[in-house]
Amino acid sequence: MSSTFGVLFKISTWGESHGAGIGVVIDGCPPRIPLSPGEIDAELRRRRPGQSDLTTPRKENDKVEILSGVSDNGETLGTPIALLVRNTDARSSAYDEMQHTYRPSHADYTYDAKYGIRAWAGGGRASARETIGRVAAGAVAKAVMHVLCPQLDVLAWVEQVGDVRCEVESDKVRREEVESNEVRTADATSALKMRELITTARSKGDSLGGIIRCVVRNAPAGLGDPVFDKLEATLAHAMLSIPACKGFEVGSGFGSARLMGSEHNDAFYMEGARVRTRTNHSGGIQGGISNGEDILMRLAFKPTATIMMEQETVTDAHEMATLRGKGRHDPCVLPRAVPIVEAMAWLVVVDHVLRQQACKTL
Amino acid sequence: MSSTFGVLFKISTWGESHGAGIGVVIDGCPPRIPLSPGEIDAELRRRRPGQSDLTTPRKENDKVEILSGVSDNGETLGTPIALLVRNTDARSSAYDEMQHTYRPSHADYTYDAKYGIRAWAGGGRASARETIGRVAAGAVAKAVMHVLCPQLDVLAWVEQVGDVRCEVESDKVRREEVESNEVRTADATSALKMRELITTARSKGDSLGGIIRCVVRNAPAGLGDPVFDKLEATLAHAMLSIPACKGFEVGSGFGSARLMGSEHNDAFYMEGARVRTRTNHSGGIQGGISNGEDILMRLAFKPTATIMMEQETVTDAHEMATLRGKGRHDPCVLPRAVPIVEAMAWLVVVDHVLRQQACKTL
Amino acid sequence: MSSTFGVLFKISTWGESHGAGIGVVIDGCPPRIPLSPGEIDAELRRRRPGQSDLTTPRKENDKVEILSGVSDNGETLGTPIALLVRNTDARSSAYDEMQHTYRPSHADYTYDAKYGIRAWAGGGRASARETIGRVAAGAVAKAVMHVLCPQLDVLAWVEQVGDVRCEVESDKVRREEVESNEVRTADATSALKMRELITTARSKGDSLGGIIRCVVRNAPAGLGDPVFDKLEATLAHAMLSIPACKGFEVGSGFGSARLMGSEHNDAFYMEGARVRTRTNHSGGIQGGISNGEDILMRLAFKPTATIMMEQETVTDAHEMATLRGKGRHDPCVLPRAVPIVEAMAWLVVVDHVLRQQACKTL
Amino acid sequence: MSSTFGVLFKISTWGESHGAGIGVVIDGCPPRIPLSPGEIDAELRRRRPGQSDLTTPRKENDKVEILSGVSDNGETLGTPIALLVRNTDARSSAYDEMQHTYRPSHADYTYDAKYGIRAWAGGGRASARETIGRVAAGAVAKAVMHVLCPQLDVLAWVEQVGDVRCEVESDKVRREEVESNEVRTADATSALKMRELITTARSKGDSLGGIIRCVVRNAPAGLGDPVFDKLEATLAHAMLSIPACKGFEVGSGFGSARLMGSEHNDAFYMEGARVRTRTNHSGGIQGGISNGEDILMRLAFKPTATIMMEQETVTDAHEMATLRGKGRHDPCVLPRAVPIVEAMAWLVVVDHVLRQQACKTL
Repeated sequence: MSSTFGVLFKISTWGESHGAGIGVVIDGCPPRIPLSPGEIDAELRRRRPGQSDLTTPRKENDKVEILSGVSDNGETLGTPIALLVRNTDARSSAYDEMQHTYRPSHADYTYDAKYGIRAWAGGGRASARETIGRVAAGAVAKAVMHVLCPQLDVLAWVEQVGDVRCEVESDKVRREEVESNEVRTADATSALKMRELITTARSKGDSLGGIIRCVVRNAPAGLGDPVFDKLEATLAHAMLSIPACKGFEVGSGFGSARLMGSEHNDAFYMEGARVRTRTNHSGGIQGGISNGEDILMRLAFKPTATIMMEQETVTDAHEMATLRGKGRHDPCVLPRAVPIVEAMAWLVVVDHVLRQQACKTL
Repeated sequence: MSSTFGVLFKISTWGESHGAGIGVVIDGCPPRIPLSPGEIDAELRRRRPGQSDLTTPRKENDKVEILSGVSDNGETLGTPIALLVRNTDARSSAYDEMQHTYRPSHADYTYDAKYGIRAWAGGGRASARETIGRVAAGAVAKAVMHVLCPQLDVLAWVEQVGDVRCEVESDKVRREEVESNEVRTADATSALKMRELITTARSKGDSLGGIIRCVVRNAPAGLGDPVFDKLEATLAHAMLSIPACKGFEVGSGFGSARLMGSEHNDAFYMEGARVRTRTNHSGGIQGGISNGEDILMRLAFKPTATIMMEQETVTDAHEMATLRGKGRHDPCVLPRAVPIVEAMAWLVVVDHVLRQQACKTL
Repeated sequence: MSSTFGVLFKISTWGESHGAGIGVVIDGCPPRIPLSPGEIDAELRRRRPGQSDLTTPRKENDKVEILSGVSDNGETLGTPIALLVRNTDARSSAYDEMQHTYRPSHADYTYDAKYGIRAWAGGGRASARETIGRVAAGAVAKAVMHVLCPQLDVLAWVEQVGDVRCEVESDKVRREEVESNEVRTADATSALKMRELITTARSKGDSLGGIIRCVVRNAPAGLGDPVFDKLEATLAHAMLSIPACKGFEVGSGFGSARLMGSEHNDAFYMEGARVRTRTNHSGGIQGGISNGEDILMRLAFKPTATIMMEQETVTDAHEMATLRGKGRHDPCVLPRAVPIVEAMAWLVVVDHVLRQQACKTL
Repeated sequence: MSSTFGVLFKISTWGESHGAGIGVVIDGCPPRIPLSPGEIDAELRRRRPGQSDLTTPRKENDKVEILSGVSDNGETLGTPIALLVRNTDARSSAYDEMQHTYRPSHADYTYDAKYGIRAWAGGGRASARETIGRVAAGAVAKAVMHVLCPQLDVLAWVEQVGDVRCEVESDKVRREEVESNEVRTADATSALKMRELITTARSKGDSLGGIIRCVVRNAPAGLGDPVFDKLEATLAHAMLSIPACKGFEVGSGFGSARLMGSEHNDAFYMEGARVRTRTNHSGGIQGGISNGEDILMRLAFKPTATIMMEQETVTDAHEMATLRGKGRHDPCVLPRAVPIVEAMAWLVVVDHVLRQQACKTL
């Protein structure tokens, strides 16, 4: 269990890499939200392999089919929305070796330990194809928010690949810049350097990790449910559930460890009728509840586990073995992880908006 | 909503700082687990203010009352366990100013934004006293695990305060060392330096943040529910729900961003009949499921928001104001956060152990 | 697990008959709802034993303590509301025999079968004292509804005891009539007959069952979540969770089996601007959603299991035995079940109102 | 929200009558359970229209596609199982009138009241086609139980149609008898009478209701979670969520109202090493927990709402109108409701078995 996420805007994803398809059911989407397959496909294209020469050349021409929950004229019905993306281009043969040999730092061994069985081809449920369901559901969440909270926006970008870091102020970053380069970083110079790093890693059969930054802009004050479903806690849950994510920070994050309270506290002031803070070390969240400032997150991603180099490992018969990655893989997952991060942020935010609506007494 | 945590070992905490008390109800505790108030009080003592001269001199002589769910001879009944700790030593007068003036980087403004009302005295629900319920429930979780999974242990310690860092290998740290110094760090030298830093900060009316490391030892392979309730995702949720926590890492964490796949991957090998990994960048979790290695986490905590210095702020009437912290506060929360971190780890682990039991087919 | 009920207005009850007390935590109560202990005590008095000579003479002078979630001036804070009622007048000795001998048609054997342990004194968790938490939480739900949906009302009464039946039209019944007689039936004549029946049964050491009718008036159209949380499905869940409840009907109920569609269908018509139905066989619910008509339910209750007559049974050592009920018990639970039924109805309705608020898009 | 059911064996159904299809996602199915599409199709055939001349002649040649969660060699993977049945034979034109005119005792008006929008063709989400997801998931639950609890069985049959009642002792009924007649009642004589009644009703354009009996045999003692998720409470929830179900009884049900405690109590005795009861008024459940006896339920179903007779109603513009049913409908839903009732029982039972496994301490 646990392919289910969300309290009120509840999604259940399903699907293995080499099964019939990947999908998601959304239970709890409000009615009368305009929604078209095109909006979902647009997000899926951003996640798709083969979108640039930096990603795996696998061709996954994913197009969503809306199976339920949307009326003929394109409005949500309030009933569950089922979305299906069929699997194609599955070359199981590339994975034959994986049937009995555990890939290092993959989920092969642990799935066997947990379930006593696994769909080995393409990584099965642990494949990155699983994230299709998230991205599709995130597109629906975004459509809901455009109605309920139209000013709110979510933007993510690659801040770091290996040791190349893109230094920008988060409130200056624009979506057009991010989408204009294949790395999805925030400036052209960094994009070039990151691209070179990724190309080099791939030529060596090696891989790279990095950091993604995500900002939620114009969130209303009041989102987040203390004490266990603090906004940052549910965001952390969402982000750490993304494959390869190893760390999460909100606001000052790990940097807060070195600051004094006098440096870290965010002084309040009035900007017209609006309560603002002079600084934003809180990352837009105080006591688990949004304060109206930008919600700032940083996420660490490990380097892709599949590398084209020989590695020591064991088989499911518990014999020593070596394994060299095959198949078509991204040397760096970050460019394609950007829409996944955004999708998870949309899913968390829409759920908290509905939860906040629920307890309104005015 | 959301003072509820856990799927099968489900806890609901309640209580405001200056209300009648603080408590927790545990629904889903297995039956016939030996449990005494003494075990719970022992953990509460580690959380308690006034335990050393580094913490607030507030005296909270918290003792738990077990109201239900435990038989006369000290075994759990399988029915809900209600735990109550009465509030005492509440000096609301120290907080008078807080009634209308928002403390910077506290939850005063956001609670008002969310609820339109708040229990201002002592921070109300956002007070650190709320964590009593967590620590008490964590002690129960620990008692359950001693029966279901006796070899498993959870250990946390202060790794960093301000810029003083305790460099130890996590598998060398022993509980006795940690508990032998009032900072709860892993070696005596660091303890002295951290102590000095905290004392200095307090004398200036300022505060400090830091980093806590937590390790779960001897967890069986197979814990964690992909895809959304990955073990690291639920741990991150748990940890980021702790007041003042700003960041979470599992295994290599943010450091993974700078490693190549060939450096980061954890090669498998056989140690007798057991599958092991040569390194542990994965932090004991692969694909969201434990692999039997130590589960390694790091958590960032911001400096205490209450400082004895004048700060700019606004009132609930939206007028500019200044505020200087009063009352009795910890200049650094980390020593007392250690048992809270451990409690949250126990709660996550016991829930996953029960979930794993549920789906056994053999 | 499962002492938790509700999706958004979530209650967790706890407590054994002869433990320290009985209580409930409500997580998800909206803020700024006026709430006083008096409102809760008023409902508890209706549930209390000893309120008339028809009920057990046990004296349970239950008064609630609000431990959290309510401000000093009596408004809910939006945070969890913890309610505590201390146990008193516990005469465990009256139950000594129960320690090893299973009472027929009680939960002694099944608790042992499930948990391998049980709090035998007074029935432990399976005691009717458990319903104190429900009634207290129901009083809070009622207070919330008075703000969110002030026209809505819930009324229950005893329709039948043994074979004495009170024939009234449900829309004619008034609360004053019901509360004016100790049986809580809807007219004085039936009250007398039922009283006689109960008195006779008690004098024989025997017991009686019966039927309670419950109506929710002035519910807005639109409550209820198809398909699994249909309004009648959650009501049935709530009612069948009450001790001794054996059956549930909505609208035409079992009587619908003998009607033709042409007799059963509720024709629509306009009453001014409001859509109404000519008849109400649907019981105010169509497709799981309220249609604005009265929501009509009937609930069957079995006769009290404890009787003062010798019965065949077995011990926990699996030896044959006989048992004669002792202690002080109601010969008929129905008069005291009325406020419990109402409480469960309030809890279901408030949850659906909050759920409906959550998905509003206008 | 609420197309989701179950705590550990969690199903999410989706689909409108005239949309692309109907389906279900099962999250929490244990791994390594043998499962084939054939087992699911076999149950779907029992639910299917057109299986006899007593049901609607609509042809729904439903075949399931297993989209995920099952390995190539037919074992569950422990990951979500997605099942899809495509819609075919959809004649929307038969429903044109329904677009603006509310069918009496259908869900047209209430869906509009709740969502402000509805998929009118064929009843949309409120169509009986929705139950395909339940039956398919129930078949999976049954497959799980065959591994975890192979002796347990669920059997339902039609006890009453209109005023024709099949009087049999529930422990005598065999599946072969039930499946051998098109009404799915328990003896041939009743079958003939019921058949005649249904045929007559259809010839008049009218419809019939009735009663289904369901028994769970050989359930182990110990299933069911007090206090809110009592076994009978979750069964009632499940059954009342079935379209047209108006009442639920467990054991003595409404009949218990007329019994004295001395008549109703089930005396315990030993049958070898097994604790048994002499009678079974409890219906196999005491204190919300199974006691090992047969679990006995009775369910009332109202007559089909669609009748071929002119009825008074209103339009969505709130104007008076008349409506005569069109399309192809069952004059009595009971024969096809039998497999739905069984499916819901399997779903409840498997969930409680997994919940019971979760809290085992031995």
